[in-house]
Amino acid sequence: MNVNRQWRLARRPKGAVQETDFAWTEDPIPSVGEGQLLVRNLYLSLDPTQRGWMARDTYVPAMEVGDVVRSFGAGRVVESRHPGFAAGDLVEGGVGWQDYLLTDGGGLLPLSKLPPDSDIPLALGVLGLNGVTAYFGLLEVGRLKPGETVVVSGAAGATGSVAGQIAKIHGCRVVGIAGGPEKCAWLTSVAGLDAAIDYKGERVDRRLRALCPEGIDVFFDNVGGEILDAALASLARQGRVVLCGAISAYNEKVPPPGPRNYVSLIPRRGRMEGFIVLDYQERAGEAVAALSRWVREGKLKHQEDVQEGLENAPRTLLRLFEGRNLGKQLLKIADPRTDDPE
Amino acid sequence: MNVNRQWRLARRPKGAVQETDFAWTEDPIPSVGEGQLLVRNLYLSLDPTQRGWMARDTYVPAMEVGDVVRSFGAGRVVESRHPGFAAGDLVEGGVGWQDYLLTDGGGLLPLSKLPPDSDIPLALGVLGLNGVTAYFGLLEVGRLKPGETVVVSGAAGATGSVAGQIAKIHGCRVVGIAGGPEKCAWLTSVAGLDAAIDYKGERVDRRLRALCPEGIDVFFDNVGGEILDAALASLARQGRVVLCGAISAYNEKVPPPGPRNYVSLIPRRGRMEGFIVLDYQERAGEAVAALSRWVREGKLKHQEDVQEGLENAPRTLLRLFEGRNLGKQLLKIADPRTDDPE
Repeated sequence: MNVNRQWRLARRPKGAVQETDFAWTEDPIPSVGEGQLLVRNLYLSLDPTQRGWMARDTYVPAMEVGDVVRSFGAGRVVESRHPGFAAGDLVEGGVGWQDYLLTDGGGLLPLSKLPPDSDIPLALGVLGLNGVTAYFGLLEVGRLKPGETVVVSGAAGATGSVAGQIAKIHGCRVVGIAGGPEKCAWLTSVAGLDAAIDYKGERVDRRLRALCPEGIDVFFDNVGGEILDAALASLARQGRVVLCGAISAYNEKVPPPGPRNYVSLIPRRGRMEGFIVLDYQERAGEAVAALSRWVREGKLKHQEDVQEGLENAPRTLLRLFEGRNLGKQLLKIADPRTDDPE
Repeated sequence: MNVNRQWRLARRPKGAVQETDFAWTEDPIPSVGEGQLLVRNLYLSLDPTQRGWMARDTYVPAMEVGDVVRSFGAGRVVESRHPGFAAGDLVEGGVGWQDYLLTDGGGLLPLSKLPPDSDIPLALGVLGLNGVTAYFGLLEVGRLKPGETVVVSGAAGATGSVAGQIAKIHGCRVVGIAGGPEKCAWLTSVAGLDAAIDYKGERVDRRLRALCPEGIDVFFDNVGGEILDAALASLARQGRVVLCGAISAYNEKVPPPGPRNYVSLIPRRGRMEGFIVLDYQERAGEAVAALSRWVREGKLKHQEDVQEGLENAPRTLLRLFEGRNLGKQLLKIADPRTDDPE
């Protein structure tokens, strides 16, 4: 098994991302040079932002056609000639869609710095970029205040599910928007939100008006499109829209129309603001400490959707755009105890 | 001439506001009761926000069909049984589209508090709500910093023309967007902006990319629509969009599509924020003091478009939506020296 199986970008997606946008290759496992280390990847993190990386320069340069698909994930160091890492260390970072990562350590973080009670799926989701994104998005960008009315879209997703619960922990009234009764049931019965709206079966605008008669103080948006428009229509005076993502637009060939109700930001004195979690990198420890404590105290529930097998990477990414994941979408590509492929 | 001529709202405008949305009435001049005063209106201020007042509740309740058309303006007190006002005082405030206003003084401001070198047109524009709007919009909402690149839409209008010049005074590079060569020439040769874009004859998106290669730090928007979209596409990292108005949308029966490029707020960490000048009422003195000083020092040029005759009020309002006004749109309805109708 001296093979490094890899998924490479075969072409830039046009419209909906498809399995045929990727090409499977098999190369020998590379040998480790001075200052390098080799990581056996165990879990891949599937994130909507990858769709952007494939298409164009965004907050990071685009990946190139032919590149191993860029991806967050976690693995175990199997060989190290790097002073900062030793064989056996668990690491997370930009591991790519492949069995093995050869790296000089740039962008890798030791997983051992994470709390002892956390496992890899937790570390990649609630205590990883998703949790940190929700934390700073709500508290810094959204300036959340206790008692406010908060609405989260993509509320059963990796980031949204944390955002809704952080708002609850801060004494807010929280409504989650998600697709389908299963996700909505999870939001109210497990995550403890005050209400859930099923955008696939309900009129979001009407339900928001009914559930938030005094208006929405903070809307944490992962979705965009009509859901953002509905939230803007119900925005409270001095309401804040935290733009975390816009998954409804990522697969469109031309950007879909923007929110016509943006004009209501004027009479409502509203604010709509985008952010990228990377800007809070230096303060990530603060967020991870709080998130870990909340998980330990049972205040922050988490849910991972773990698929298996590197060969399933493209179709696991597609699950995000089909709204099939409940919680953090992960792909387990090797057994963490044996490093054997799943 | 014991007649108070008035324009009343005949029906709520649908789509483009039309002269037939208004009805002309003539009533006797009302007699002044205890605690009241009678004002001879001299100038009316025509403002895009009036379109909203006619249609629906916004940041203030809608006017009712049959009401005298709500309007800012200025006049002279001709009779007072109110302790705060004396016959002969110049006042400004919500005077309405009529020759005479009978009022208990609510919402009226003595014009005598304004600097001695100012005249009524200046007081209603640069030193009035338009100037105060531009001041707080740029400095408070936009958090303008010296050396930044600023773009203003509706740049030759009452508020935009002040906003662009305030940005220049603060050491910014300023591009104005306006309709037609005459307005653009005024922006660069009189107002001293660095460049002007004629949206009627040029591709705004291309010109913004060329003129702002490092991106737009502050976009002060009075227009919305495609111009907002073009500005969002060129927004700099941490750029701010100050939403002052959206005149391109006010006359539409259904709100037009929103800015598709709002998504770029995410990677650019941008902010789009609406405001209403009334929130800064308590600090208006600070703005008026600065604006007066800049006018006196010759740093802030002003331009008024003064039409004449109360009978022309509806068609003067229409000038705003036709983009025919250069600078502040006013209607002189009586001679300030004689109070005789124009």
